Amino acid sequence: MSKRALISVTDKSGVVEFARELNNLGYEVISTGNTFKILKENGVNAITIDEVTKFPEMLDGRVKTLNPYIHGGILYKRDEKSHVDTVNEYNIGSIDLVVVNLYDFEGTLKAGKSHEEMIENIDIGGPSMIRSAAKNYKDVTIIVDVADYDTIIEKLKNNELTLEDRKRLAYKAFSTTARYDALISTYFANEVGDKYPEILNLTFQKEQTLRYGENPHQAGVLYSQPNAKNPILNYEQLNGKELSFNNINDLHGCLEVMREFKDSEEVVSVAIKHTNPCGVGLGANALEAYTKCYEADTVSIFGGIVGITSTVDVETAKKLNEIFLEIVVAYDFTEEALDVLRQKKNLRVLKLAKIEESLQPYDMKYLDGKLLIQDKNNVLANKYETVTKVKPSKEQLRDMEFGMKIVKNMKSNAIVIVKDGQTLASGCGQTSRIWALKNALENNKDKDFKGAVLASDAFFPFDDCVTLANEYGISAVIQPGGSIKDQDSIDACDKYEMTMVFTGTRHFKH
Amino acid sequence: MSKRALISVTDKSGVVEFARELNNLGYEVISTGNTFKILKENGVNAITIDEVTKFPEMLDGRVKTLNPYIHGGILYKRDEKSHVDTVNEYNIGSIDLVVVNLYDFEGTLKAGKSHEEMIENIDIGGPSMIRSAAKNYKDVTIIVDVADYDTIIEKLKNNELTLEDRKRLAYKAFSTTARYDALISTYFANEVGDKYPEILNLTFQKEQTLRYGENPHQAGVLYSQPNAKNPILNYEQLNGKELSFNNINDLHGCLEVMREFKDSEEVVSVAIKHTNPCGVGLGANALEAYTKCYEADTVSIFGGIVGITSTVDVETAKKLNEIFLEIVVAYDFTEEALDVLRQKKNLRVLKLAKIEESLQPYDMKYLDGKLLIQDKNNVLANKYETVTKVKPSKEQLRDMEFGMKIVKNMKSNAIVIVKDGQTLASGCGQTSRIWALKNALENNKDKDFKGAVLASDAFFPFDDCVTLANEYGISAVIQPGGSIKDQDSIDACDKYEMTMVFTGTRHFKH
Repeated sequence: MSKRALISVTDKSGVVEFARELNNLGYEVISTGNTFKILKENGVNAITIDEVTKFPEMLDGRVKTLNPYIHGGILYKRDEKSHVDTVNEYNIGSIDLVVVNLYDFEGTLKAGKSHEEMIENIDIGGPSMIRSAAKNYKDVTIIVDVADYDTIIEKLKNNELTLEDRKRLAYKAFSTTARYDALISTYFANEVGDKYPEILNLTFQKEQTLRYGENPHQAGVLYSQPNAKNPILNYEQLNGKELSFNNINDLHGCLEVMREFKDSEEVVSVAIKHTNPCGVGLGANALEAYTKCYEADTVSIFGGIVGITSTVDVETAKKLNEIFLEIVVAYDFTEEALDVLRQKKNLRVLKLAKIEESLQPYDMKYLDGKLLIQDKNNVLANKYETVTKVKPSKEQLRDMEFGMKIVKNMKSNAIVIVKDGQTLASGCGQTSRIWALKNALENNKDKDFKGAVLASDAFFPFDDCVTLANEYGISAVIQPGGSIKDQDSIDACDKYEMTMVFTGTRHFKH
Repeated sequence: MSKRALISVTDKSGVVEFARELNNLGYEVISTGNTFKILKENGVNAITIDEVTKFPEMLDGRVKTLNPYIHGGILYKRDEKSHVDTVNEYNIGSIDLVVVNLYDFEGTLKAGKSHEEMIENIDIGGPSMIRSAAKNYKDVTIIVDVADYDTIIEKLKNNELTLEDRKRLAYKAFSTTARYDALISTYFANEVGDKYPEILNLTFQKEQTLRYGENPHQAGVLYSQPNAKNPILNYEQLNGKELSFNNINDLHGCLEVMREFKDSEEVVSVAIKHTNPCGVGLGANALEAYTKCYEADTVSIFGGIVGITSTVDVETAKKLNEIFLEIVVAYDFTEEALDVLRQKKNLRVLKLAKIEESLQPYDMKYLDGKLLIQDKNNVLANKYETVTKVKPSKEQLRDMEFGMKIVKNMKSNAIVIVKDGQTLASGCGQTSRIWALKNALENNKDKDFKGAVLASDAFFPFDDCVTLANEYGISAVIQPGGSIKDQDSIDACDKYEMTMVFTGTRHFKH
């Protein structure tokens, strides 16, 4: 038998040249509908699929290649006599090379088309051919990627297309059909409102191989989720070295804090170290916000990330340049500011897309073969209930909300102390709540906490936090409440004439 | 046309009863190879696939249903005149219900079969029929799960199978094919040695809907990865309430520390709070190990998890019962010990499978639509290089390795201070290294640190940690090294006659 290639592609780019080269290599080209038309118009020697199937293409193209003359020609084992006898007996011609790319379900999804159009864009014949050819990769070459055309032709010309090559192509083929059906099943999950399906299929596209992972002995890679909506990591890099694994992880922490302030009329500036906010400032402009952020903790910010929810001007840029930072991320930069920041060759400067509410339905933690998945924590507080005799002032309430937005995004157990839209001290990642508060206070003995607000990510098990806070002059507390000993903390507040607000919303984050 | 059902199943359970009910409901049953044989033997009225396809089943079953008489009968739109005319013209009978389950690729994978057997177990015809029927769910019912037979029959009998039902079945169908191809593509990725593929397809199976996630306002679900090898969360629950989201997350932290000691001749006991080890003890038996673990920090352990790498005896159980714990996890329990622990109705008691080296290739972090993925951190130290004039004693070296195993599994920045196979103090999750050390020391002012060993997860940027450690009587340090100011810390050690060992392996963990 002479060699035959079957070509059925939605993306027609490069297909004419590729088919012509196949002709030159002695392949008979079989093709479907529009692909056939384009090949013929461009002088490629091809036959229609009907000539092979002895059956018409029908039902608006829903059925054309689902046919034993196609799948028999692909699937028979060339080294098995009974298989060869069968195809000979039934006059099934060999198909040795299959080129398929699929109906553009992904593009149709991104374009937000109607359900009917989504359904029409589910390819049936394509995946069947891809999977047949991939299963029989020992004898058949399967090509699903336009980018592979040139290499394949080159290898065929030099008679260098090996079994190993065909195995890799089969691997790519199954990766493609798996991704295709993962997108379809996720589409249906959304359609029927199934947030946590019995079978959860996730597909990711490699975006960047990183220098290494969290540590130099670990390889690290960044993937993106093709069907994710507005991922928060969406920026243009204007200066500096490539981001590292830890940079990206820390940056995500920074952006999540910035997201808390997405509707704020004031500018917020956030400093992040090891994923935790170590300084946050609110201001009328970038300079004021950053100055407050920096002065909140002039030590931890060293080597950290700074985020600013506005345009960075030249004065702010000059102040940013005074210390060593890994990343500066902001909504925009003036040209002058950029010139200043670019004086530091390595400083990563990122221009951020406007931060929206998260559209990802969930967060997840991978635990050595298991996956813990949960609703994204998109709530701040479901109430602001004053539980003490002293009521908070308007300024205290503002600082309470400010503090809660920050402590929500710190590793538990976490405490933050804030005043006038600025963090004064914080403690996080502690196994005991009083330690988190002690850390915050004892690492900042030079600070004046008089009139400050304390925010806690979870309730106080005892009244010790209130008592210690009072000793330092803190006058207001915001926390979820919910301890069986809440009354002890309320009584302590009343005794010290402090005000305390319960939110009802715990923010553990581990 | 009379209604027809196509049945082609690998798992034959329940199929006879199901097909008989379809007969009763007036369906003509079409069936393939073995399924047909079983149906006929059991008196079900069925016809063979060949009668429909007008073509023989061939190539050892590789080609039987890939045929326009099958796919046309499934795919034609019942409400589109041109489609109806076409099927009538070509004598293509309607197929209104499709029942398929696939060749057992997953089972073959788990059984560790040869590559040839894996390839033979890639189903081609099955997924094609499933996908055809699911695409045309408006007119066709697709059943991929034996567990759905009864419900479907019930609904058909009562004429209650709605469009919404068929849509949900289509969703399940695409979830099934996506999972099937995800497993195949992952199999091929392993075959060709591609750890971080261009397209990463992950599939998970829902294991348990949890009461909630990290916080009560977040829904939480536990999934398992069907192709994961020996996941570490592998236990039998012998007592207590269902595990919560945070329990599972903390438990994973506990098991990862226990895994560091999987080859240890001594028993290790680990206490975990908020994913971080807060006490660890080595001993000749469970009681000694747990006693040291408990005494390491009698405060943080409250409400935590305790893991023990041996059989818990009655004395240990009694001591465990003295405080409030969420979980006790161990290799085994004596009957007497279990009786003691079961006195606490809510205490979760878990009997653990032996912990092996991790076989999962990677860890990952999901960041709002992006995925950071990295090699699992399976290294402890790539050297033990003494950099000071004073060499460590054998006991100090043992404590150094012990400390490094613990600090590796703490949130960065982390410091642990250990002596004689027991943690004395620790600080973690800090934005500054000296703070981590200060936390450790200042929260444990009553402890005697004389002769203790300090382990750090990353290098010292200055000599302040060594100086502070010396003030408390600590005499040995283990850390990765690699700071440009390493010499300052070495000089400080030499000045104080301390010993210090570099491992060359950083252990950031965020």
